[in-house]
Amino acid sequence: MPRQITAFSNPLIKDVRALRDKKHRRETGLFMAEGLRILTEAREAGHVPVYLFYASGTRHVLLDSLIAEVEEAGGDVVETNADILHKLSGKDNPQTVLGVYRAFDLALERIDRGAAPLWIVAQALRDPGNLGTILRTGDAVGAGGLILVDDCVDPFSVEAVRATMGALFTQRLAHARWPDFVQWLRTAPGQLVGTSLKAELDYQEPRYAPPTFILVGNEAQGLPADYEAECDLLVKMPMLGKADSLNAAVATAVMAYEVINQWRRG
Amino acid sequence: MPRQITAFSNPLIKDVRALRDKKHRRETGLFMAEGLRILTEAREAGHVPVYLFYASGTRHVLLDSLIAEVEEAGGDVVETNADILHKLSGKDNPQTVLGVYRAFDLALERIDRGAAPLWIVAQALRDPGNLGTILRTGDAVGAGGLILVDDCVDPFSVEAVRATMGALFTQRLAHARWPDFVQWLRTAPGQLVGTSLKAELDYQEPRYAPPTFILVGNEAQGLPADYEAECDLLVKMPMLGKADSLNAAVATAVMAYEVINQWRRG
Repeated sequence: MPRQITAFSNPLIKDVRALRDKKHRRETGLFMAEGLRILTEAREAGHVPVYLFYASGTRHVLLDSLIAEVEEAGGDVVETNADILHKLSGKDNPQTVLGVYRAFDLALERIDRGAAPLWIVAQALRDPGNLGTILRTGDAVGAGGLILVDDCVDPFSVEAVRATMGALFTQRLAHARWPDFVQWLRTAPGQLVGTSLKAELDYQEPRYAPPTFILVGNEAQGLPADYEAECDLLVKMPMLGKADSLNAAVATAVMAYEVINQWRRG
Repeated sequence: MPRQITAFSNPLIKDVRALRDKKHRRETGLFMAEGLRILTEAREAGHVPVYLFYASGTRHVLLDSLIAEVEEAGGDVVETNADILHKLSGKDNPQTVLGVYRAFDLALERIDRGAAPLWIVAQALRDPGNLGTILRTGDAVGAGGLILVDDCVDPFSVEAVRATMGALFTQRLAHARWPDFVQWLRTAPGQLVGTSLKAELDYQEPRYAPPTFILVGNEAQGLPADYEAECDLLVKMPMLGKADSLNAAVATAVMAYEVINQWRRG
């Protein structure tokens, strides 16, 4: 049976609210996701929350299924109210359902490159919105997942999880330092394709072959020179205006759609 | 000669800081932009700030040119410090240069569609980051500008201006209600291309003809049905995963690159 919590001072509320801080996420190995839609996608991908919070009066068949699964898995279901949900999520108009999940194992070795023809690799990505948008794009183009290289924004931050729109649970996620990534990459076939302002090769010229790894650089600096040197292909998109770069998530998407469009043509 | 302001209580500081609020921007017809790079792009596009703030000790030939131009135009140059710039911009690590500009006239009638082969139209766009990213993409693909339809986020908000990376000054910008936009659109040739989840036509199938107007819908709802009905072409991008939509700025970019790629092939 769901238990009820309506007091801000409840220790569980304080603990879950603290998951908005990276330090607390690290210590507990937990993170939060909001919204029935995202929680249902998580469930379909095999992720059941440890804690499930919902606002009293919320009625939905998908919520009933979620509650049943959480209880069956030994998780904790908490009936609460909009004020508490606002306190937990920090959002002015909070979703009526919120789940707390165990963070995934981000070991690179757990990535099976054969599981998908396309993978996205992001280096020193700093913006949670960009990270979320890239995961969401990855889902759309049938990528296997996102490999984060070097110091990136935490994929389990509330902002990043929100921006993924659920793709956090459907895409694989890994994290590695650059030398470890390169070592892993070269243990098996795989084409590393970087986008660069300095490239001379138009991104529509090469024929891409799976598994393709699209490498996108930091929002402000782009890719370091030695990272570019490691790429099998370095390509550029046409830039017809005054600006010299695209938003990182946009560049990733334009590149990824070119790759799958080639494959769609067969 | 630049004057010096180092007191938080100075009325000008309070007034400029208030430009972070939409209401104050509306009342004054002013907005702020930060960073020497963006201010220089603005200058090259013919926009000189009414007020120019810079941190003492900032030395740059581009700043010298800016100061000279602002003074020549009768503007106000203010030497200040990092604390004041932080107070003005709200940023923890503020840029050392900040300009206050007159908001542009957003009348649709000022758009000359013949000036570019491609235009972007966004309906009820709510996220300032998306608006900025779309303007930046517009610059990259050689679009003429962005036409905002219905209730969109304010393009002069600090967050939107930041996300444009300067494209706010190089792209044309207009705002209109939907019936007025449609009326204007149909006064001359122009192909209205909407992206929709309900479309059956793959976005790579049609041949796009300039001037093409790419129509992108609200982040959460997409385009209303009667807006879709007005489109000359309604297309979809392949979605190979679990998600049913792309981020609005990503969808715009993928669509826009398809259009210019067709034209590049001739």
